Amino acid sequence: MSRARGANQPPVESPGRFAYEGLERVIHEKARLGILTSLVAHSEGLLFADLKELCTLTDGNLNRHLKVLQDAQLVEVWKGGKHKRPQTMCRMTEMGRDRFLQYISVLEAIVSDAAASEATTLSGKNILKGLPAT
Amino acid sequence: MSRARGANQPPVESPGRFAYEGLERVIHEKARLGILTSLVAHSEGLLFADLKELCTLTDGNLNRHLKVLQDAQLVEVWKGGKHKRPQTMCRMTEMGRDRFLQYISVLEAIVSDAAASEATTLSGKNILKGLPAT
Repeated sequence: MSRARGANQPPVESPGRFAYEGLERVIHEKARLGILTSLVAHSEGLLFADLKELCTLTDGNLNRHLKVLQDAQLVEVWKGGKHKRPQTMCRMTEMGRDRFLQYISVLEAIVSDAAASEATTLSGKNILKGLPAT
Repeated sequence: MSRARGANQPPVESPGRFAYEGLERVIHEKARLGILTSLVAHSEGLLFADLKELCTLTDGNLNRHLKVLQDAQLVEVWKGGKHKRPQTMCRMTEMGRDRFLQYISVLEAIVSDAAASEATTLSGKNILKGLPAT
């Protein structure tokens, strides 16, 4: 990690500076984050079985998280299939894509904040100094 | 977002490709992620009141999350103060810093995955195509 803090980021000491309000809980949940990243990488949609394997989820867990994402209108689920074999296809909605990319921009800010502090502390590595003066 | 997929990343279709196992739940929780990013940016430690303001948390919530982070040995809490005014100072442990930076590298991978798919879909923007052939 070598990127410097962006010139347009707020100063480190502002109130709420590390609140990261943009981390929507419906997206931030670990399994759902994996599901959404899979779907954004496959804009044509993914079959249930493939999505399950890509995210290492059980049928029950994937169904449960898809329900949450459908209720939030981030994902759409299609039933259909070929050769009489029923299949389920999942795809991101346009709104899901927009909100996911907004969420990703918050992750980028966190990575950038962490990278900036890593660079700052390289010279004076976390030595016990007693209580700070303020 | 303009970074291309790294040459050493696994192919998009590998099983577990989007499982992101490195997203430790103790760190991934939204409020704790804010607390840890604050602390990694302030390696000398932060007073409870300052941390509370930076993360927009209540006393109760901050205490609850600090307890979780202490139990996981990611954060240490010091009681002390100047001029007879008791104060609480929070600081990341060395292990906390290492595990947080590992976690951040997973966030970087997610951002990179999302950026790569954004670039891929720019030309063929999410048009309804019916069920995929596979």
